[in-house]
Amino acid sequence: MRIAFSSWPEIDARLKSQSPLARTVVVPIGSNEQHGPTGLLGTDWLCPEIIALAAESANEAITVAPTFNIGMAQHHLAFPGTITLRPSTFMAAIGDWVSSLTRHGFERIYFLNGHGGNVASIEAAFAEIYAEWSYADERAPFMLKLRNWWDLPGVTDFCNRMFPEGHGMHATPSEIAVTQAGYPDSIKRASYSPRIAPIGPIRDAHDYRARFPDGRIGSDPDLASPEKGQQIIDKAVPALDADLTAFAAEQQP
Amino acid sequence: MRIAFSSWPEIDARLKSQSPLARTVVVPIGSNEQHGPTGLLGTDWLCPEIIALAAESANEAITVAPTFNIGMAQHHLAFPGTITLRPSTFMAAIGDWVSSLTRHGFERIYFLNGHGGNVASIEAAFAEIYAEWSYADERAPFMLKLRNWWDLPGVTDFCNRMFPEGHGMHATPSEIAVTQAGYPDSIKRASYSPRIAPIGPIRDAHDYRARFPDGRIGSDPDLASPEKGQQIIDKAVPALDADLTAFAAEQQP
Amino acid sequence: MRIAFSSWPEIDARLKSQSPLARTVVVPIGSNEQHGPTGLLGTDWLCPEIIALAAESANEAITVAPTFNIGMAQHHLAFPGTITLRPSTFMAAIGDWVSSLTRHGFERIYFLNGHGGNVASIEAAFAEIYAEWSYADERAPFMLKLRNWWDLPGVTDFCNRMFPEGHGMHATPSEIAVTQAGYPDSIKRASYSPRIAPIGPIRDAHDYRARFPDGRIGSDPDLASPEKGQQIIDKAVPALDADLTAFAAEQQP
Amino acid sequence: MRIAFSSWPEIDARLKSQSPLARTVVVPIGSNEQHGPTGLLGTDWLCPEIIALAAESANEAITVAPTFNIGMAQHHLAFPGTITLRPSTFMAAIGDWVSSLTRHGFERIYFLNGHGGNVASIEAAFAEIYAEWSYADERAPFMLKLRNWWDLPGVTDFCNRMFPEGHGMHATPSEIAVTQAGYPDSIKRASYSPRIAPIGPIRDAHDYRARFPDGRIGSDPDLASPEKGQQIIDKAVPALDADLTAFAAEQQP
Amino acid sequence: MRIAFSSWPEIDARLKSQSPLARTVVVPIGSNEQHGPTGLLGTDWLCPEIIALAAESANEAITVAPTFNIGMAQHHLAFPGTITLRPSTFMAAIGDWVSSLTRHGFERIYFLNGHGGNVASIEAAFAEIYAEWSYADERAPFMLKLRNWWDLPGVTDFCNRMFPEGHGMHATPSEIAVTQAGYPDSIKRASYSPRIAPIGPIRDAHDYRARFPDGRIGSDPDLASPEKGQQIIDKAVPALDADLTAFAAEQQP
Amino acid sequence: MRIAFSSWPEIDARLKSQSPLARTVVVPIGSNEQHGPTGLLGTDWLCPEIIALAAESANEAITVAPTFNIGMAQHHLAFPGTITLRPSTFMAAIGDWVSSLTRHGFERIYFLNGHGGNVASIEAAFAEIYAEWSYADERAPFMLKLRNWWDLPGVTDFCNRMFPEGHGMHATPSEIAVTQAGYPDSIKRASYSPRIAPIGPIRDAHDYRARFPDGRIGSDPDLASPEKGQQIIDKAVPALDADLTAFAAEQQP
Repeated sequence: MRIAFSSWPEIDARLKSQSPLARTVVVPIGSNEQHGPTGLLGTDWLCPEIIALAAESANEAITVAPTFNIGMAQHHLAFPGTITLRPSTFMAAIGDWVSSLTRHGFERIYFLNGHGGNVASIEAAFAEIYAEWSYADERAPFMLKLRNWWDLPGVTDFCNRMFPEGHGMHATPSEIAVTQAGYPDSIKRASYSPRIAPIGPIRDAHDYRARFPDGRIGSDPDLASPEKGQQIIDKAVPALDADLTAFAAEQQP
Repeated sequence: MRIAFSSWPEIDARLKSQSPLARTVVVPIGSNEQHGPTGLLGTDWLCPEIIALAAESANEAITVAPTFNIGMAQHHLAFPGTITLRPSTFMAAIGDWVSSLTRHGFERIYFLNGHGGNVASIEAAFAEIYAEWSYADERAPFMLKLRNWWDLPGVTDFCNRMFPEGHGMHATPSEIAVTQAGYPDSIKRASYSPRIAPIGPIRDAHDYRARFPDGRIGSDPDLASPEKGQQIIDKAVPALDADLTAFAAEQQP
Repeated sequence: MRIAFSSWPEIDARLKSQSPLARTVVVPIGSNEQHGPTGLLGTDWLCPEIIALAAESANEAITVAPTFNIGMAQHHLAFPGTITLRPSTFMAAIGDWVSSLTRHGFERIYFLNGHGGNVASIEAAFAEIYAEWSYADERAPFMLKLRNWWDLPGVTDFCNRMFPEGHGMHATPSEIAVTQAGYPDSIKRASYSPRIAPIGPIRDAHDYRARFPDGRIGSDPDLASPEKGQQIIDKAVPALDADLTAFAAEQQP
Repeated sequence: MRIAFSSWPEIDARLKSQSPLARTVVVPIGSNEQHGPTGLLGTDWLCPEIIALAAESANEAITVAPTFNIGMAQHHLAFPGTITLRPSTFMAAIGDWVSSLTRHGFERIYFLNGHGGNVASIEAAFAEIYAEWSYADERAPFMLKLRNWWDLPGVTDFCNRMFPEGHGMHATPSEIAVTQAGYPDSIKRASYSPRIAPIGPIRDAHDYRARFPDGRIGSDPDLASPEKGQQIIDKAVPALDADLTAFAAEQQP
Repeated sequence: MRIAFSSWPEIDARLKSQSPLARTVVVPIGSNEQHGPTGLLGTDWLCPEIIALAAESANEAITVAPTFNIGMAQHHLAFPGTITLRPSTFMAAIGDWVSSLTRHGFERIYFLNGHGGNVASIEAAFAEIYAEWSYADERAPFMLKLRNWWDLPGVTDFCNRMFPEGHGMHATPSEIAVTQAGYPDSIKRASYSPRIAPIGPIRDAHDYRARFPDGRIGSDPDLASPEKGQQIIDKAVPALDADLTAFAAEQQP
Repeated sequence: MRIAFSSWPEIDARLKSQSPLARTVVVPIGSNEQHGPTGLLGTDWLCPEIIALAAESANEAITVAPTFNIGMAQHHLAFPGTITLRPSTFMAAIGDWVSSLTRHGFERIYFLNGHGGNVASIEAAFAEIYAEWSYADERAPFMLKLRNWWDLPGVTDFCNRMFPEGHGMHATPSEIAVTQAGYPDSIKRASYSPRIAPIGPIRDAHDYRARFPDGRIGSDPDLASPEKGQQIIDKAVPALDADLTAFAAEQQP
């Protein structure tokens, strides 16, 4: 069930249902930022959305929220099309999403993330949210979970075997491939030089662009294909389903 | 050109192009909130997205940003599926979007809005952004514009003629129709009682639900059809194109 | 009863009284900003104060708070004497005023506003205040109302008939006239060129001053007179009284 | 010259004039809070306003801003009619006032304060404002000064001689007397028990009301008279004038 | 008992004990900022730490928190080594410390301060904390106290007698002496010119350095000696013990 | 050189020196939080302080700031003695520290961290700081680095070999051992049951205490000894020195 394409009585019924996933919701969360010469600017929010919606297609008991499509990508700002929130804004927005969803009775909020640069801010946001309960000496009536889609059990190993060389850290062939499978009409090609991009630390936007002139880090996106993308999706979908089921079943200690 | 489905070099080329719309960008902005017994929770962000993408299909010179899908809907929180930002969070996020887009050279940021409840916060956000320049005694190097899609020239008149009775203010047949045209697989039906919903003031969520038990205000969504929705879209698209062109051509005084 | 000129036991007695207006309070709210070559910088906070105090003189059951004299006027900053809050500051301050007044038992807070530029921020502030209750799944124990003085029933029509031409949107003859009636010793005269000021959009302070060199928008303040101002006040006072009475009598649904 | 009762061209001319006080502005600042059984809730903003306007009447070269009438009075909230800002809100608002006034060219902002409870927040606000310049390694192009009206040279000694017993710290006969002189129609009388109120520390509102049941601290307001108030005003006015002149003449080191 | 060098069960036992000081905690608080040519940058946090730990050594019933070592010192930023928080950051941090300590059951939080520049921000922080309770119409279940170490009963008189000339206001011989007693290996010497530093107002960092070129205000630190420092500590320790005991015994009214 | 025990002219000279580490500063950063039945509440700020000061003793060219002793530990709040900042407060404070240190000319700020729970907030703070430069299209004139002391090259391997079983994640024998080496007078002993603590996820404070009743996660602190602690310190010190040297030598791309 996709929240955005449901009516409120449908969500109401879902929340009151006996489904093991009734009060669990998946929030695809990512970023809109450069992904090298050929990667879509939307790559990092499209990937978790593609995987979450594929999982929902396979198992309608999964509830999927609208996609949180702008995250923390300040380091990509020297490349046009990047849109970023400050970490503090991002954290406040995550807090408001959680306040909204838990207000309705969702007890497990599962953020399926598509952008490594989001991780620190999301975890800090979780701590900010929990802190209110911790200071107040009360038990939080919900659980929050962050899962990067590539960290779904088995996925990273699968991608590494698929791309033993040139996977890299940004504009990776695996994320490019997932978007190619999802949006085959938007596949772009270019010559890459060097074939495998350099690696290095991440700081501000100027520093980033000087280190990584075409935006990639350590990757060869030319290895991507829609077929490989579909294989990754097929690997990720049951892993997500299982992960959600386990999360929903988790007991408070 | 859709930013999310473009690569950064494509956006870079667009920004440097001679197109009259080169440095103008449309941000579809809305809300995810209850829309009565049958309206999609995503109605208010789907409508401006549908219209903006239709305009972009008709005129590729239009640049469309990802959709800002969560807005200010605190008053709808008593209906499951509603997700809202606080006005302060919303304003901070709008500020970060604008900082990102103007950083790349966009000089006209056009928010195509789908939710009346967003208007005050968006306008307050604009003032917050401009205030930095005003205090600093500097000219803002960009212009911001808010346009509700129903306020595109000719659209409201068109909708009023189409729905002389039962248009109302929330879960209106016109917005429901637009989503029916865009997503015909998600059309829902229900019996409405009363046929035309009551009207009244908007305050907090409890007050809202007590006044408007099924979520509608003054509307009869049963009047909607995908055909009517398409007619509204067809009316809105050229109006948007013209409005954008005029905005892009506006000179700073 | 004016709060500032009362003692706390007097306010305490008022709150505990059986008066229909016992727990209703009027907050005159405006802005201190340029009003063209002759308008007082205080025009926008003086007008609601003048009207509220006149209403209180006519009906002592009306409780009037001190005047909130600085609002959101960033666009006027290129004219000396303008003082503005950022929207975020303004909203926080409104929140604290409401927290203070409702703490004492006021259940209806009525903001009588004198500045169009305040509207978005005040409405956003209301939503920010209500959001706490909406997230918490609790009914707000008070109601907030914003009323521009010129939107008091009958007043705009009256002013339009009085000034069929040259009323405009800023430094209007009607607001100038109200201050002339209130403070006849501060009437100023000047030659206006053009007689009726231009109109246009409102953005940052530089843009504003370039468009509207003497500060007026669409108005001819020379039409004002203290006699006309008194007529407007006389029109507004009973409208305010009736509006307050209706607000105080409103039932929570 | 009173800003609120001037037009912008008048303020513009003042700022460009050769007067020693041309770029100095007085901001009367206070609080709206209980002042015992008979003191006006507005006492703390009325006193600096009365003194500043008296000084301006005596010397038109003094520029007086609108009165900042709500300050930090959280400890008085258990008494109806008190309105307070949080310190953080208060500080943000002071920052915006200063940004506005210095934007126009005022180089000396003089806060004439009427409420002891404001002092910490005003000083913290000054430090917050200066910190931006200090971090940036730039010289602030303005100076800020806080002066409590009773700390104007000679005033406290004068008040102590006038009220050798029962002056106290809150709802003092001297501040009550100043408002009696300013607003003789609003003089109130009551029996006080005890005649001189108790003293003690200031904490939250409940603690305050328990310690100081009628709101006074250490004072006997019955000693006040409008004549004494006028004497205090007459003492304060030349002291304010001299203090302003010295402040305006201060050189940056 | 020093919290940082205790285990949680030890703090737990202390809180549950019958000691009169069981639920009282001392927080040494200061600043890291220039203290003239020879004073340690840590002077203002070392002094209260030295005194608090000496008191704890003399009376183990005293509970001492870790030292809050960075405060509000924006005016010292033109001297290398100074680290400062903005007042707003400082206030938020004090709020979080208080929320943490009161969460565990501490009912008296005593800030032993070593920096005059901290006073306004700490008092504003207290008001910000209390305001939540005051708005909520609830009694704060704790008391906060600020005490500058030199304001411990008898200490300032003692220092003034010890240094009848050249005590001054910053980099005073008394604070230098206390650090010399505490850290005799870190004593530094220099020639001072002038011997006694100038005095003047405190504004931003540039202004400060121009007025006070070597950082001192009104002081002759050459008068300091470790022996004198020890005498001051010996004077302060019993005064602190008595002050804490009185604070712990204070009853809510 | 320790900043707190230096004078400002000493820091000034250091910053202007030709030392490769002249403009690099180490900030020990940690948390004050429960560390099981025997671990010191200060463990997480003491460990990086011990290691940084040992490195500075070995190489005086290293500049060490005061210790940032309170971090993000909301999950430990159910254990007395824990003091935590909210992530947002923590981030603001880190921002102010960095603004202060870079203002003086430090170009490399190296945070030596002792608390895993700090990592997300510190990284988010870095992004918040960099974002200002990235939005402004300017190169940040400094570099920030976060290093957990156990991630210094070779240290984790060394600890794992030393404690092949029972190392765990919180109240680990390695961190306990480091504090035992640093503060042998504060060694505490207790019986642990179970000997090796359980493991699990980290959420709010109630959840944490229910899962980890004595505060440990996966560890057996009884394995610690001061001798082992000294070995760890001896391993970490040269690693820190080398890491700092490499950081200081890093060129901006």
